[in-house]
Amino acid sequence: MKLGEGVEAAIHCAAMLAGVEGEATIPGAAMAEAFGLSPSYLLKHLNMLSAARILESVSGPAGGYRLARPAERITLLDIVLAVEGREPAFRCGEIRRNGPARLDVSAYVKPCGINAAMLKAERAYRAALAEAKLSDIVAEYMTDADPRSVAAGCAFVARHQRPQKSSSTKQT
Amino acid sequence: MKLGEGVEAAIHCAAMLAGVEGEATIPGAAMAEAFGLSPSYLLKHLNMLSAARILESVSGPAGGYRLARPAERITLLDIVLAVEGREPAFRCGEIRRNGPARLDVSAYVKPCGINAAMLKAERAYRAALAEAKLSDIVAEYMTDADPRSVAAGCAFVARHQRPQKSSSTKQT
Ligand code: FES
Ligand code: FES
Repeated sequence: MKLGEGVEAAIHCAAMLAGVEGEATIPGAAMAEAFGLSPSYLLKHLNMLSAARILESVSGPAGGYRLARPAERITLLDIVLAVEGREPAFRCGEIRRNGPARLDVSAYVKPCGINAAMLKAERAYRAALAEAKLSDIVAEYMTDADPRSVAAGCAFVARHQRPQKSSSTKQT
Repeated sequence: MKLGEGVEAAIHCAAMLAGVEGEATIPGAAMAEAFGLSPSYLLKHLNMLSAARILESVSGPAGGYRLARPAERITLLDIVLAVEGREPAFRCGEIRRNGPARLDVSAYVKPCGINAAMLKAERAYRAALAEAKLSDIVAEYMTDADPRSVAAGCAFVARHQRPQKSSSTKQT
């Protein structure tokens, strides 16, 4: 079992965007630079986050990305599902009905117990991800991470964020 | 995120092997037939289960596979880790230190909070899998599954199990 590498990049970008002022945006290229990623690779994932309405992309000279809603209302589950898709990790191929002793379809109405047990464990996983709010991740970073890292991160955001002309109405 | 298809086959085979009498074995080819799988595909996964000491393989004319310990002491987590490997699904690539503002290595001693949150969710997943004992899966199958399916499964095991010459000492 393996999550795509895009998950790490997507969460880091969302956490960075939680730090901008008001409705400012950060260009995708700046975030790619911050994490040493290829811009085209990162854009793919940023666009997935936009499609899932976790980010908003703004075009034009002050364009870039920003959170589509406050970080309190974005969870790691939102981000993981946006990047990895909503399908469960365990995909039952109904092998119980593949053998030569295949029964009438009515014998398979109840889901296979093995499938049910695997999906139950995934619900526990998703529940834990749903409890992890982006705002908590950022708050813990600000208090727990090495102060040099926090200072560098804040300086990066201050340098690369692009304020918007219209007055800000969004609270982050 | 996706688990390999081998997980479904591995759990179904282990559940089937929980039904043999005493130290009897079932040949891999019979299990492949039962689930409509290619024998070589299935053997790969049966061998992973043997390497993880979940199954025992017996060679010779009465050869095949059997559980290496009682089904009460085998969990879905044991089987998933045997087939998928023990690495976490989320693999931190330490992208926080990839940018141009890379700090001294001492700034990264603490694990990244994003990595910590992702691994915490995986611990919840694994804990749920560890709670699912193979014996419970089988007991629920016997009581909850369609009676035709249970009858067909028991008949299949009765037909394909190979009793061992030596007297049985293992309790399953
Ligand atoms: S048939 Fe798919 S898990 Fe049982
Ligand atoms: S550096 Fe890997 S998750 Fe943060």
